[in-house]
Amino acid sequence: MNEPATLGAIMAAEIAEQPAVFDRILLESAAQIRRVAEKIERARPRFVVIAARGTSDHAALYLKYLVEVGLGLPAGLASPSTVTTFRVSPHAKDVLWVAVSQSGGSPDLIASTRAARTGGALTLAVTNNPASALRDASELGLDLRAGVERAVAATKTYTATLLTLWLLVDAWRGGDGQAARELPPLAEKAVGDEAVVELANRFRFAERMLVTGRGFSYPTAREAALKLMETSYLGAQAFSGADLLHGPLAMVDPGQPVLAALSPGAGGEAMGPVLDRVKERGGDVHVIGARIPGLPSPDVEVPFTIPELSPLIEIIPFQRLALSMAVARGHNPDSPRGLSKVTQTL
Amino acid sequence: MNEPATLGAIMAAEIAEQPAVFDRILLESAAQIRRVAEKIERARPRFVVIAARGTSDHAALYLKYLVEVGLGLPAGLASPSTVTTFRVSPHAKDVLWVAVSQSGGSPDLIASTRAARTGGALTLAVTNNPASALRDASELGLDLRAGVERAVAATKTYTATLLTLWLLVDAWRGGDGQAARELPPLAEKAVGDEAVVELANRFRFAERMLVTGRGFSYPTAREAALKLMETSYLGAQAFSGADLLHGPLAMVDPGQPVLAALSPGAGGEAMGPVLDRVKERGGDVHVIGARIPGLPSPDVEVPFTIPELSPLIEIIPFQRLALSMAVARGHNPDSPRGLSKVTQTL
Repeated sequence: MNEPATLGAIMAAEIAEQPAVFDRILLESAAQIRRVAEKIERARPRFVVIAARGTSDHAALYLKYLVEVGLGLPAGLASPSTVTTFRVSPHAKDVLWVAVSQSGGSPDLIASTRAARTGGALTLAVTNNPASALRDASELGLDLRAGVERAVAATKTYTATLLTLWLLVDAWRGGDGQAARELPPLAEKAVGDEAVVELANRFRFAERMLVTGRGFSYPTAREAALKLMETSYLGAQAFSGADLLHGPLAMVDPGQPVLAALSPGAGGEAMGPVLDRVKERGGDVHVIGARIPGLPSPDVEVPFTIPELSPLIEIIPFQRLALSMAVARGHNPDSPRGLSKVTQTL
Repeated sequence: MNEPATLGAIMAAEIAEQPAVFDRILLESAAQIRRVAEKIERARPRFVVIAARGTSDHAALYLKYLVEVGLGLPAGLASPSTVTTFRVSPHAKDVLWVAVSQSGGSPDLIASTRAARTGGALTLAVTNNPASALRDASELGLDLRAGVERAVAATKTYTATLLTLWLLVDAWRGGDGQAARELPPLAEKAVGDEAVVELANRFRFAERMLVTGRGFSYPTAREAALKLMETSYLGAQAFSGADLLHGPLAMVDPGQPVLAALSPGAGGEAMGPVLDRVKERGGDVHVIGARIPGLPSPDVEVPFTIPELSPLIEIIPFQRLALSMAVARGHNPDSPRGLSKVTQTL
């Protein structure tokens, strides 16, 4: 493959493709999602375990919140290594096991999904590759329909996963998925908002960065930090607002940029006391997200949607921030050093 | 309270107290742990959900591995904010809900534990304060018996929690807790090993640090990073070996110190391919833990114990590293800037 003409051209194109991917999912995935939701509902799972790595693990975290808040069911993130390293099969009756993977090829996910199925779980693979071994290992499957993703830093497969998972949970609880119809134009607006360029200039020389959010914005904070690490090679750290106060706050000083992801509603509002403490310590606080009375005004305002859906839009400025900073530093986010598109872990 | 005569004198004393705390738990907790284990066994929980913040959250992660590997039951870490921020009560029949907190006073843990109990969970509080509101909110309770902890950076309450949780799981699966009897002299050895001072000198001026481990050593990596953040104000980041390869590896360059926690057995051995990749990227790799053929020799060798118990000993050199680095930098780890001993989050 030839080098792209411009640093980050592929990542930029895939970020810009997200509104179209949303459109495609809304048009083409409804029937598949409904079928899967019906099968899940019939099985009446009482506990949801989600297995994933990297970017998909942040989609898994989003699903965990959705299941807990939207369905009131307890949910947990799997540790695939308990199967692959320690060879333990879980007693998994009444468990819905969801494995999330762009490639569907990582051996640890495949092995742990097989073990969960043997242990009695209902297994669901969510992948961008319907022909993957992970899909074969699972009873149920959902296709992301994001198209081939070529940049190593995942963008469109992340938001495609979030939308697919939201539609699944909404169908499971008997919803009609209507709220998601407004997403494509909102994503288009986020893709075109140039306010993020100023933030990228401000942080160009930062060596460390802290990203924080609560509730539905915590997955956003985690995914934003990963994008910054893998494209700009920054020491970016993500904490939920509450966890930040339990220790990491001590690191914050006037040399520490702090980015807050604020979703509308209770999750964003709960960040008020957290950001007050961060500002007391002199942290350089900037907000990407909703405008919330009493909280700092957003540097990049994210178009309003319901809190559950806000992570699908608010990640877009963070993706663009990571892209801009990487390019400004002379790195190529399409193929970061040391990484390849499919990571196989055991 | 007066300033201590020496920076970090309280934290140093509490680190050194750990062998005695182990002795006390082994002597005095057996009956309480057996009673609680019997009640849990009678309830036959099928899922375990663990709620905690900060250092206790790393003990929660340890318990998650113990439950998955030692009992083969699915387990997950709770998101207390789904209760306090979003006011959702979980459907928690057949769930064992374990809340871990040194103080037993954080409002989010108390509220989420009450909600879990209302939802049908069997609730267990593990605290260093038998008179706490968290204990009152829970059906069952275990006391840590660590004595009052005065340094803000938790040390002896962390290892006391790990030992109490291991004894609980071992009693639950019908064990006699015998393997833990060897811990006090091993902890004594770790408290006295001066090899860690050289590491502290080497990293004195580091601004970023990466800590990694797999399986039972992953909680160690997380707790080590938190100690470094809260005492030395370092941008310390922890990743499981597998997660490190899914993106963060790109940050690693010759200016990046990487500390690996290696437990004996499968978890430590699985770090081989991870450390190879880190070294390819030029990372300055140092090991605290077991001597494993084919892996880098430990800079600080941790006395051998069974893998399940190794986190109780291997954290000690990391605690001492954080203490030494903080003092060398002129900080007082007994009362880090911006923090107080009891953190109350909503």
